[in-house]
Amino acid sequence: MTVRQLSLPELVAACAESGIGKVGLWRAPVQAYGVREAAALVRAAGLAVSTLCRGGFLTAADPGERAAALADNRRAVDEAAALGTDTLVLVSGGLPAGGRDLGAARDRVADALAELAPYAETHGVRLAVEPLHPMFAADRCVVSTLAQALDLAERFPAHQVGVAVDTYHVWWDDRAPAQIARAGGRIHAFQLADWTTPLPAGVLDGRGQLGDGAIDMREWRGRVEAAGYTGPIEVELFNEELWARDGREVLRETVARYLEHAV
Amino acid sequence: MTVRQLSLPELVAACAESGIGKVGLWRAPVQAYGVREAAALVRAAGLAVSTLCRGGFLTAADPGERAAALADNRRAVDEAAALGTDTLVLVSGGLPAGGRDLGAARDRVADALAELAPYAETHGVRLAVEPLHPMFAADRCVVSTLAQALDLAERFPAHQVGVAVDTYHVWWDDRAPAQIARAGGRIHAFQLADWTTPLPAGVLDGRGQLGDGAIDMREWRGRVEAAGYTGPIEVELFNEELWARDGREVLRETVARYLEHAV
Repeated sequence: MTVRQLSLPELVAACAESGIGKVGLWRAPVQAYGVREAAALVRAAGLAVSTLCRGGFLTAADPGERAAALADNRRAVDEAAALGTDTLVLVSGGLPAGGRDLGAARDRVADALAELAPYAETHGVRLAVEPLHPMFAADRCVVSTLAQALDLAERFPAHQVGVAVDTYHVWWDDRAPAQIARAGGRIHAFQLADWTTPLPAGVLDGRGQLGDGAIDMREWRGRVEAAGYTGPIEVELFNEELWARDGREVLRETVARYLEHAV
Repeated sequence: MTVRQLSLPELVAACAESGIGKVGLWRAPVQAYGVREAAALVRAAGLAVSTLCRGGFLTAADPGERAAALADNRRAVDEAAALGTDTLVLVSGGLPAGGRDLGAARDRVADALAELAPYAETHGVRLAVEPLHPMFAADRCVVSTLAQALDLAERFPAHQVGVAVDTYHVWWDDRAPAQIARAGGRIHAFQLADWTTPLPAGVLDGRGQLGDGAIDMREWRGRVEAAGYTGPIEVELFNEELWARDGREVLRETVARYLEHAV
C-alpha cells in the first residue's frame, strides 16, 4: 500500500531493484491481477509475501452480513495460502450502523475468530489481529489497543491467532511496551509508519514517512525484537503525497528512511 | 465553545432563556470582554460559571517557554477565581517540536502541577487534568487516558488536582469505566460530546451533537454519578456546522438533546 501507484509487476521489479526480499500485499490488487497469477509473479522474482492484508470486518450483528463476512475471510485465508504467506492480518471492523456497544462488537469478533482460526490453521495460515488507533474505533476497528487484541488472541493457540503491531496505531499507548512483552510469540506481524500532524480529513491517509513524525522507530523495533520477534518488518504508509510521487522513488526513499531511523 | 458564535452578553441571555444555570467559559472570550466585566455580567444574570477552560500546555522543555507557561497558568487560576468557579480545566500540551518522548513530556506536566496546585489552592481553585483522545497525543495533549490523568492527579490531594472526564475523549477506552470508579471524588468536571465520523481535517472541530454519534451518553453519565459525581454536566461541542447556525437555536437544540439522550 505504501506504493499503491505501482502495478504488481512494477512493484515486484521495484522490490528487486531496492533489495527488498519480502512484500506485504493487499487483497484488492491481488484479486484484480488474479491470485494464482500474483503468486506466480512474486515467486518467479524470488520475492516472498510477508503478510496478506486484510481480512476482518467481523462486527456485523445481522446474520446475513455476518455469514458473508465469514465467507469472505475464508477466501482471504485461501488467498494467503495461495500466495505462500503464513500470516493474514485482520482488522476487526467498527460499530454496526447506529451501534453504540463496543463491548458487544468485540464479543462478535471473538466469536468469529473461533470459527476462522481452525479453518486458517488447516491452510497453514495464522491470523494476526491488528489493533487500530482509537480514532478508528467507531467506523473501522473496535479493537483499539494491543491489550484488547491480546485478550482476543489469547483465547486461541498462538499458532492460530496472534497480533499485528503497527507503530502508527500503538505509539501513544503507555501500556503498549508491556503488552508487546506479554505478546511474545504472538507477534505475527510488525509494521512501521510515523505519526504526522495535522491529520487529513477522514484521518485514513495521513501516515507519515519514517522519520517525519513523532514516533521513535528504533525504540519500538527494539521492544518487538526483545519480545522475541524475528519476522519481517513492513513499512505501511497510507499517504496521498507519497502516492502522488513516482513509486520506485518512494520505495528507495522508504528503504533509506528505514535504514536511517529503524536500524 | 458550543455556541462560540454568541458574544458573552448574548450567551448569558441565551442561557437564561434556555433555563441553563451554569456555563463553562473559555479564557479567550473572557479576556477579550474583560475578566471583571465578564464576572459581573454572569453574576448579574444569576448564572454561575461551572469551569474555566483552559490552562495547561505545560510540556515545553525550554526553560523560558516553561516559565511563560507557568505564568500563564497562574493567570488562568486568577481568572477562574475572579469568575467564581472552583475548577480550572488543564490540557497538558503535546510534544515539543521535533520531540518523540511522551514519557518525558508527561513528567514535565507532573512537575508543573507541583508548582501550580498549591498556588491554585490558595485561590480556591482546583485543577482538572483532562485526558484528550489519543489522536491529540503529538500536538495537543500527551495525557491520553483517564488512567494517565489519574496517575498525575493522585500525586496531589484531591482538592488540589483531579480530572475532567469528557465522553468524546474516553468513550473508546475499555478501561475508562474502571478508571472513573477509581477517580471517585477526583472527578472535577464532566463534559459530553458525541463521536461522529468522518472526522474533519485537523480532527479538532468534529465533535458531534448529543445523539448523533457512537456514544451512549446515559451510560457514561451513570458511571460518573455512580462514582459520586454531583457537579455540573457541560456539553462541549467543537463543530463548524453548529457554529454556522444561530447560537440560540443551537443552545435550545442542545438542551433538548441532553434531555433526550443523557437524562
